[in-house]
Amino acid sequence: MAPARQVLVAVIGAGGVGKCFLSQLEFLAKKRPSPKLVLSYICTSKKAVYNDDYSDVGLSSDVLSTLASSSKAPLSLPKLLDYLVKSDSKAVLIDNTSSQDVADAYPMFLARGISVVTPNKKAFSGSRQLWIDIFNVSGAYPGAGHVFHESSVGAGLPVISTLKDLVQTGDEVTKIEGVFSGTMSFLFNSFAPTSGSGGKWSEEVKKAKELGYTEPDPRDDLNGLDVARKLTILGRLAGLPIESPTSFPVQSLIPKELESVASGDEFLQKLPEFDSQMEEIKTAAEKEGKVVRFVGSIDMATKEVKVGLEKFDRSHPIAGLKGSNNMISFYTKRYGDSPLIIQGAGAGGEVTAMGVTSDLLKVLAQI
Amino acid sequence: MAPARQVLVAVIGAGGVGKCFLSQLEFLAKKRPSPKLVLSYICTSKKAVYNDDYSDVGLSSDVLSTLASSSKAPLSLPKLLDYLVKSDSKAVLIDNTSSQDVADAYPMFLARGISVVTPNKKAFSGSRQLWIDIFNVSGAYPGAGHVFHESSVGAGLPVISTLKDLVQTGDEVTKIEGVFSGTMSFLFNSFAPTSGSGGKWSEEVKKAKELGYTEPDPRDDLNGLDVARKLTILGRLAGLPIESPTSFPVQSLIPKELESVASGDEFLQKLPEFDSQMEEIKTAAEKEGKVVRFVGSIDMATKEVKVGLEKFDRSHPIAGLKGSNNMISFYTKRYGDSPLIIQGAGAGGEVTAMGVTSDLLKVLAQI
Repeated sequence: MAPARQVLVAVIGAGGVGKCFLSQLEFLAKKRPSPKLVLSYICTSKKAVYNDDYSDVGLSSDVLSTLASSSKAPLSLPKLLDYLVKSDSKAVLIDNTSSQDVADAYPMFLARGISVVTPNKKAFSGSRQLWIDIFNVSGAYPGAGHVFHESSVGAGLPVISTLKDLVQTGDEVTKIEGVFSGTMSFLFNSFAPTSGSGGKWSEEVKKAKELGYTEPDPRDDLNGLDVARKLTILGRLAGLPIESPTSFPVQSLIPKELESVASGDEFLQKLPEFDSQMEEIKTAAEKEGKVVRFVGSIDMATKEVKVGLEKFDRSHPIAGLKGSNNMISFYTKRYGDSPLIIQGAGAGGEVTAMGVTSDLLKVLAQI
Repeated sequence: MAPARQVLVAVIGAGGVGKCFLSQLEFLAKKRPSPKLVLSYICTSKKAVYNDDYSDVGLSSDVLSTLASSSKAPLSLPKLLDYLVKSDSKAVLIDNTSSQDVADAYPMFLARGISVVTPNKKAFSGSRQLWIDIFNVSGAYPGAGHVFHESSVGAGLPVISTLKDLVQTGDEVTKIEGVFSGTMSFLFNSFAPTSGSGGKWSEEVKKAKELGYTEPDPRDDLNGLDVARKLTILGRLAGLPIESPTSFPVQSLIPKELESVASGDEFLQKLPEFDSQMEEIKTAAEKEGKVVRFVGSIDMATKEVKVGLEKFDRSHPIAGLKGSNNMISFYTKRYGDSPLIIQGAGAGGEVTAMGVTSDLLKVLAQI
């Protein structure tokens, strides 16, 4: 009998998503006897664990302590690629970082047969050239690696796979719109609820930060770039040649005066001085019987992509979203006036890792 | 250079879904140079078109007229299997019927390496033994065929694939609930709208039939079996050993007295005599400020599966559904209180065919 086929898994990143992914990978490895999943490499930005014979580095929760006490430095990306290519087994790179450097290396990995699975938005929402370089290689010829990135939009929600299915089966997408940021969703559901009056803007931002719903510096959410990156990905998948996430209008919710203050803490401290601006926007919407929400939309006919505040009737599904939920609507020729809608948590370690793990399953089915 | 790889496609059924699928298959064949898709066999219950050399029977709209004027009878299922197996190419069987006979043959096709793609619910919602026979073979060993059936629940909506991803990545599904029938959705959205008073029950049923939203005999929708079959499929995928779609409570909306009348026409003629029964149900809900909807649910903890009428607040997302839309909510451990929700048209030729075509793409990626 031939030895059981094995697939090497190399993981970069062991933060919130990375840790959840490791426990899902362990579940997978226990449940699926073939191919055997071997965690051959794992690293953070400082440390790494791997063996020259590619043997498992400990696919269980204690790999994190092994990693913490490791004296090995991470391999450079070209060396990691060499390490994986030199084995006799197929390998998958899991990029659980948000690093541009790792993203820039995808074409090199794919070209040498290493598949890539990642929640990292950088590769798909950065320069259009990188996008082209990646998809010119991914699955393009026998032996090329495959790339999957479901969790780059809406975490584990089936957003990317659904859009791909629509496009690949010949449907015509006419419009994509929705709430793409769990942070923005949480902020506006509290600041401008459909019933009741909501809190002060600066206080809601502070609360969101305390609950861990924002980036360490909340301006990284409030500048709208995260949503712009997600729209760039969806627009490109739908067929628009979007140059970059800054090549279309993106409304920033950072007051001009606070754009260059030194730290997130200083920003939060000064934000109350600008509460009246957001209050005005809320009141203007209320006068029309509406609520304000931070949304993104892509109009395929006019090729218009935009990100920013819009007013919605209180009965509109987007107005009624709860918590930090995302809601993405696909308007297409086949679905007519009733869009295909996907809704649910669009952030969080477990659900983001789920998108990574289900993408890994897709790779395993294909290699 | 090796000759371009080809995959044979054999299609059973050329009705509403079948016709839409053929046009999507043509789109696919034009767009994807490799593997080359060859429509080698197509049949209705009466006629068939195929060539001994497996050459394309005309992957364009005129294959339907070729089929209509063909003098060949369909091959029996064992003979179709032999025909496909004897070629040098991989082959996929597309079952666009709702036939139990074709469904019963899936294990035989899968065991000999022919993959199966279908919107036909019969194989997955009938006897538990057939389910077991199918999934004991599908993808179980190198050379076995794969089976995909996205359109058996919610047409092209990503319901099956999402549930599979949740389960396979180790999430714990706690509850599945929703509106699973486009017909029932249309009927209750008109009969008991969230605003206004709605029409008489018998008139809404008549209208739905005229619009083509019901089966030829509307009792085939009103008996609840279609929804019960869909819940059987989802429950089994989630891990419940459901014996059959009649092994749990299913509320039928056919008045006892009309169960055995000879025809759908006679049923529609006599239905107005029973309008007061449905009116009572509607009024009782209205007194609580609610509306009535026909829903299905699976509680994984109690293993309770049920199908029937339930009352919902007017502000509940299920109450606010429009047209013939479906809405399926997955409650899981990871998603907590905010379920993962998928919503949109759950019936119609084009969107059902889309589920079939995207499943075919999944097969092509794996064989």
